Amino acid sequence: MTEREPARGPEQRKQDVLDHLERDEDLWVATASADGVPCLVPLSFVLDRHTLLLATRRTNPTAVNVTPTGQVRVTLGHTRDVVLIEGTAEVVEGSDLPAESGDAFAERLGWDPRGRPAWVYLRITPHAVKAWREVNELAGRGLMVAGTWLV
Amino acid sequence: MTEREPARGPEQRKQDVLDHLERDEDLWVATASADGVPCLVPLSFVLDRHTLLLATRRTNPTAVNVTPTGQVRVTLGHTRDVVLIEGTAEVVEGSDLPAESGDAFAERLGWDPRGRPAWVYLRITPHAVKAWREVNELAGRGLMVAGTWLV
Repeated sequence: MTEREPARGPEQRKQDVLDHLERDEDLWVATASADGVPCLVPLSFVLDRHTLLLATRRTNPTAVNVTPTGQVRVTLGHTRDVVLIEGTAEVVEGSDLPAESGDAFAERLGWDPRGRPAWVYLRITPHAVKAWREVNELAGRGLMVAGTWLV
Repeated sequence: MTEREPARGPEQRKQDVLDHLERDEDLWVATASADGVPCLVPLSFVLDRHTLLLATRRTNPTAVNVTPTGQVRVTLGHTRDVVLIEGTAEVVEGSDLPAESGDAFAERLGWDPRGRPAWVYLRITPHAVKAWREVNELAGRGLMVAGTWLV
């Protein structure tokens, strides 16, 4: 990585993170099986109640891996404009999803997994958020720790 | 995901994968700890002898997770132009790296981790490669299986 622009301050980085969460349609989600096999896939999402709401087939490794610990790593942006989120995911059945959440997902992404038994929702609660672009932004990349924004 | 362009054929997808491997500077690499904690980070790479050569600090989870099974998942491109590689990674000390590989890394990426004891190389051998853009390309996304190109 090379230094291209001045490092952003923490307030700007947080705003850029919030912009990504509001505007982006997709993210990368990494999970791990209980015995240490990684999985990495792109999924669409919607920001819902300060969580990320995704959907995937219940038999996909991403959904299976959520049990038992629910640990996930999510990135938005590209490799030189990284938003990295450490979070906990839970599987939510469509029938258990609040109507507003299901509606928000359907409106944002143009399709509705509710009523499709092969699909489940994943709700990811962020615990840590980091944001950086180039090497000059590695310092100060931590924006949320233990679920609390530092800025 | 929405359907935007006609699905590419397998030959075109393979060529696009090879182009990504030759031209891209960065990738996303997902690993997992032995007890199932995922890790996802962006790293720079160079294509070297049909493997992907990366470098990271030896104490970073990405390097630590390579032991014992070495299973990694790598993606290139963005979420609507995905190259997904399942591979095995091995840790290679700079002192054990062939000179041509170390030179290729240094020339491509503009810095040289050899002689920096905090850093190690990771060499990833692809076993499976998939490539797809939108939902209409999910069928036929498998291009390499068990280390062999299907096309």
